[in-house]
Amino acid sequence: MTEANDAAFGGFLNELADAAGSAILPYFRTRLDIEDKGGRGYDPVTAADRAGEAAMRALIGARFPEHGILGEEYGRERDDAEHVWVLDPIDGTRSFISGVPTWGVLIGLMRNGHAVRGMMAQPFTGERYSGDGASARYDGPDGSRALAVRSCPDLAAATLYATTPDMFTGPDEAAFARVSNAARLTRFGADCYAYCMLAAGLVDLVVEAKLQPYDIVALVPLIEGAGGIVTTWDGERPEKAGRIVAAGDRRVHAAALELLNKA
Amino acid sequence: MTEANDAAFGGFLNELADAAGSAILPYFRTRLDIEDKGGRGYDPVTAADRAGEAAMRALIGARFPEHGILGEEYGRERDDAEHVWVLDPIDGTRSFISGVPTWGVLIGLMRNGHAVRGMMAQPFTGERYSGDGASARYDGPDGSRALAVRSCPDLAAATLYATTPDMFTGPDEAAFARVSNAARLTRFGADCYAYCMLAAGLVDLVVEAKLQPYDIVALVPLIEGAGGIVTTWDGERPEKAGRIVAAGDRRVHAAALELLNKA
Repeated sequence: MTEANDAAFGGFLNELADAAGSAILPYFRTRLDIEDKGGRGYDPVTAADRAGEAAMRALIGARFPEHGILGEEYGRERDDAEHVWVLDPIDGTRSFISGVPTWGVLIGLMRNGHAVRGMMAQPFTGERYSGDGASARYDGPDGSRALAVRSCPDLAAATLYATTPDMFTGPDEAAFARVSNAARLTRFGADCYAYCMLAAGLVDLVVEAKLQPYDIVALVPLIEGAGGIVTTWDGERPEKAGRIVAAGDRRVHAAALELLNKA
Repeated sequence: MTEANDAAFGGFLNELADAAGSAILPYFRTRLDIEDKGGRGYDPVTAADRAGEAAMRALIGARFPEHGILGEEYGRERDDAEHVWVLDPIDGTRSFISGVPTWGVLIGLMRNGHAVRGMMAQPFTGERYSGDGASARYDGPDGSRALAVRSCPDLAAATLYATTPDMFTGPDEAAFARVSNAARLTRFGADCYAYCMLAAGLVDLVVEAKLQPYDIVALVPLIEGAGGIVTTWDGERPEKAGRIVAAGDRRVHAAALELLNKA
């Protein structure tokens, strides 16, 4: 893969986001038939989810037939390839079915297991947050700009986000509570949007659990590109997902890791 | 007050929303100086909040000098008047400072203590939800339509929203847990947006506590206009705020009231 090829991925991410958005948006705020996947509680899968992922898979298959794909809806395909696309057509399906525009289309690209490109696209608001690990940018209805995390000296000054308190069970519940009690403000409910606000310098810390790779891989290059840090609760690379901690400031990340692993 | 005057209020609500949006939006996603009001935990007040309310008060004072005003930032003025405007320039300041577009400008009008007109305007997305108790409508980037709640046979099928678990303290915590445990899905974080999604037929139930009149009065005419019901946990009219329960379907409202008052 040459540098020129690598740069072309940026444009292709936008093509994928266009296709997914066009497929998904007609379903937003309509009355959906909600199916249960069963076994994992209430986890809606919608026609929108499937239409969005199918649209992206078709484009990837046509343009990069040698690449692998890992998607929420249609599973794994050539996932031992050098390049693997990691797709979540609607991250935040519960926000989606509730009409709340904090869901997003997540499009990630891994090279040799390392997240190298990523985008979160919000088709209703027209916002896109993207990054390549070295830089990150926002493009939206109010213009375009570079994304940069803000500094935050310690956890006591930090705004913390998580999608829902229900994601922390067993010892993770107490671990999250230790961090939440030390933070200035804890908010729930923003799904992938919270990581984008972290990259934009408006949120300091996101702590989550029970994530799948397609929930986080797309966000890694934009968090890192904005100057932030994202790892597992064990301090490892985040691509395999599970329990994730992202911070804009390394001091806050270190403090959160310490409390998460205190028990 | 004639019928014609009453109809003119609809246009005036849009003028107020335009003025507040223009005043507030330049501050959204900028790094704000956050002041603490003190005494009530972390409750940010921003220059945006004040600019938005000042803009609305100026318009009301010029157009309806005999009307009263109750606003979050600048308090009460002639609040024994027949008509009283109830204003929250940024409902959801914590979402606002985190960059998450689920905050809104709340503009309500009470006549003799009864909420008769209301609007939630989201300046970033361009959405407006409004109602007059008999009907409710949505106007946004994707067009205009009437708002109507959906039917929901019982609590076990209901999607429940609240802004944050922290709003329930003392016996209210257990009361909310009884409702949450009986609901199909509980989500946090949407502020005023959750009531609008209820009016749009996408959410079934909102249960909150510690609300001020300016947090709820604007939403009452649009919930009722969409066919929903909103009361205090005691089943009384909601204008005095405090503990609020809103539902799209009366069966869900009744079931929630029963559980909230079970202790």
